[in-house]
Amino acid sequence: MYYDNLTLLTDLYELTMMQGYHETGLSNHQVVFDLYYRKNPSGNGYAIAAGLAQAIDYIANLHFAPQDLAYLESLGQFTPSFLEYLRHFQFSGDIYAIPEGTVVFPGEPLLRVHAPIIEAQLLETALLNIINHQSLIATKAARVVWAAAGDAVIEMGLRRAQGPDAGIYGARAAIIGGCQSTSNVLAGQMFQVPVRGTHAHSWVMSFSDELTAFREYVKIFPNACTLLVDTYDTLKSGVPNAIQVFREIKESGKPLRSYGIRLDSGDFAYLSKKARKMLDDAGFTDAVISASSDLDENIITTLKLQGAKISLWGVGTNLITSMDCPAFGGIYKLAAEEGPDGRLEPKIKLSENPEKVTNPGVKKIFRLYDTATGKIKADLIALADETIDTAKPLTIFDPLATWKRMTLQPGAFTVRELLAPVFLQGRQVYQSPATMDIRAYCQQELNTLWDEHKRLVNPQILPVDLSQKLYDLKQRMIQEIRGE
Amino acid sequence: MYYDNLTLLTDLYELTMMQGYHETGLSNHQVVFDLYYRKNPSGNGYAIAAGLAQAIDYIANLHFAPQDLAYLESLGQFTPSFLEYLRHFQFSGDIYAIPEGTVVFPGEPLLRVHAPIIEAQLLETALLNIINHQSLIATKAARVVWAAAGDAVIEMGLRRAQGPDAGIYGARAAIIGGCQSTSNVLAGQMFQVPVRGTHAHSWVMSFSDELTAFREYVKIFPNACTLLVDTYDTLKSGVPNAIQVFREIKESGKPLRSYGIRLDSGDFAYLSKKARKMLDDAGFTDAVISASSDLDENIITTLKLQGAKISLWGVGTNLITSMDCPAFGGIYKLAAEEGPDGRLEPKIKLSENPEKVTNPGVKKIFRLYDTATGKIKADLIALADETIDTAKPLTIFDPLATWKRMTLQPGAFTVRELLAPVFLQGRQVYQSPATMDIRAYCQQELNTLWDEHKRLVNPQILPVDLSQKLYDLKQRMIQEIRGE
Repeated sequence: MYYDNLTLLTDLYELTMMQGYHETGLSNHQVVFDLYYRKNPSGNGYAIAAGLAQAIDYIANLHFAPQDLAYLESLGQFTPSFLEYLRHFQFSGDIYAIPEGTVVFPGEPLLRVHAPIIEAQLLETALLNIINHQSLIATKAARVVWAAAGDAVIEMGLRRAQGPDAGIYGARAAIIGGCQSTSNVLAGQMFQVPVRGTHAHSWVMSFSDELTAFREYVKIFPNACTLLVDTYDTLKSGVPNAIQVFREIKESGKPLRSYGIRLDSGDFAYLSKKARKMLDDAGFTDAVISASSDLDENIITTLKLQGAKISLWGVGTNLITSMDCPAFGGIYKLAAEEGPDGRLEPKIKLSENPEKVTNPGVKKIFRLYDTATGKIKADLIALADETIDTAKPLTIFDPLATWKRMTLQPGAFTVRELLAPVFLQGRQVYQSPATMDIRAYCQQELNTLWDEHKRLVNPQILPVDLSQKLYDLKQRMIQEIRGE
Repeated sequence: MYYDNLTLLTDLYELTMMQGYHETGLSNHQVVFDLYYRKNPSGNGYAIAAGLAQAIDYIANLHFAPQDLAYLESLGQFTPSFLEYLRHFQFSGDIYAIPEGTVVFPGEPLLRVHAPIIEAQLLETALLNIINHQSLIATKAARVVWAAAGDAVIEMGLRRAQGPDAGIYGARAAIIGGCQSTSNVLAGQMFQVPVRGTHAHSWVMSFSDELTAFREYVKIFPNACTLLVDTYDTLKSGVPNAIQVFREIKESGKPLRSYGIRLDSGDFAYLSKKARKMLDDAGFTDAVISASSDLDENIITTLKLQGAKISLWGVGTNLITSMDCPAFGGIYKLAAEEGPDGRLEPKIKLSENPEKVTNPGVKKIFRLYDTATGKIKADLIALADETIDTAKPLTIFDPLATWKRMTLQPGAFTVRELLAPVFLQGRQVYQSPATMDIRAYCQQELNTLWDEHKRLVNPQILPVDLSQKLYDLKQRMIQEIRGE
């Protein structure tokens, strides 16, 4: 049932092309591929890069096991010479990547792969699968957490996730994007992230009555008792029974810790206000009211506008599937290839749509920060050999509407490069931080954006410009191809 | 990185409830849970049950390994006695299920679990995850394949799937739902399903010109040459170069097999008609025109209406994520539990919404077929001890609008039961068929529906009724609870 590495997690055409490169003698032709995306999901103003740790594991474990080779041979289209090549396959190239948890924008290479074309081609599908998925869910989580405005958000979508991995790595990405915890125990174990959960309706239904069910639960979990109050009737039965049980604990002299109620159906605005008043009147002002059931960033926003008294949000299906936008459109495009003299030459792919024209050459990303506020002013995609002298004014401009210009003065801006080496000559040179550390870094990253970039609808778009040198190269190549 | 079994693939609350049952002495209380769903995805008229093979693997492999127990202990909320119980945990119950590939409808138990409550509770999350995911994608695939109206459909969404499993098991489900093949090599290996794929734009860009790239490709793969023609200009460059290469093969006397072109951008209706004419004029009337790029059942339908000359469809993102409806709403609800006398007693959960009231008791499903046509007349959910005498007239009625009645006459209908035993007393008694056999069975299943039930928008809804006995039981229980 289980696979122990992901080497065959690829589209067949990567392998047929690899055989093609092998047979035509192009195998060792050096190329550079960029993995980037064109559009933020869910109409968001940014995305959160995620999945690099699993991408690294994938590459570090790449090898064709004997049963993989036997399977490929059985397909009847691979040559003995190519299969023999695969038997000794290992990745020998360089990979640069933007660290997980970083705020990123369309057009920026999240990964840059330098390798012989036969190797670079193989990586395409799995890298896209891993990075697309986790970046999608991390970004969605950041939206949900932003809507919760300081309240904790628990990821709890495992049962509706698109298979086990979608639940497991989706939980990881949701934590990176800002969720406080997950209901997913396996994700908790694998990534050492907090897990949360109390009981379901079936617990309440397994006892003769709700009060007994609550009493028994609290007896067993005195320090984590969130009672689900909607099995029979939230306000007439659930909340009064919960208050009764809380009162019994208090009267017994035991401490009440991490306690409260969970609403799972009905009108959350109305019910939470009524429940809050009932709890407060009974002296349980610190009882937490949590809610779950088809929540997302928009519903949380409207509940907050309605003054709902909810301070802990359990978000399931809509987060773990990124319901409104279930795919992140990452792509993997050739940016440079070895020329006749052995040096890398920039490559470009044209399109009728100007935004689909690729950025040629080996590139890096400069992030420009406003010194006074620490917020991002703009990102600048440049060629890899470029530097920025912060002692001089820097003029940047929109690559499509070039009259949109801005000059940054020395002292008013700082610069950071986003891409870091991850593999060099096939050797892993980067260790992924712990997931909770990536989460903390992501929170800092989100602080480098103004609220205007983070709002859920029609966010202000941060400029992602090209350096003058990259812009000139791109224009020249377009003109050459168009024969101008 | 990889997990070797899915035992911890569960929401934490399943484990806290299990400890609760353990500590209160309820562990061995026998219960019956139904796994069912309330609404077909994508507005479809039916769903395709899928995922059972993986659900069986999950249950057969259930065990808490030492590192799992150590992890749970580290959470600080589980008792030594409960952890000791888990150390020896194995599933001891019965499971009945509807075979994969079967056409199913809302309200029908896809799985029925009989077990001690402590065991039945553990299964909830993973069973839902697996069945929800694969049933979702199998159903979406059936829609896409229906729209393709006899043309082959290739699943090729791996790079946009929600993680590796979503690609792997999604490919499996897509094949079950009717796709001819997948681009996913690992899925091909794991499930022995056909894999397909040729080359990408990067292949064309790696050669000095398109014609050379095509020639080299065909040289290496003479028997599977689908040439991607849109790298530079579909009609001015791609199609003429493809024709040139096909002509060269023909003139060399080699056979041309499984050959054609792939369109990946532009106006498919226009381009395919132009390309068809160019190919036909050159004598290549059997060259296949395939298309890919953000296709789904609706786009395929409109392309067919426009007379597009495409006969092979590569469907990616929209299928593998079920883009318009990325979650299947399967739920797992208590249907019966052991009473004071040790016998199973029906349980019901009320809701303000009549369609959310559960069906009580241990149930089975009768499928009623019209003898003359072999098509499904209706499904009847009944209690497990009921039988149908086909020598007598059978009157069935809508459980909400009870005046909607229909009487089936002896000879005019046949009956089939859908649920089959999968585990009995913890022992697996069912072997899943090969995936391609499930696919063939699913095609037969789809033939038991009229086109009116299969159309993509506003399909005719097949009746799913309750037997008189189940209906009476449900009404009686509702009245008792409402105190009438």
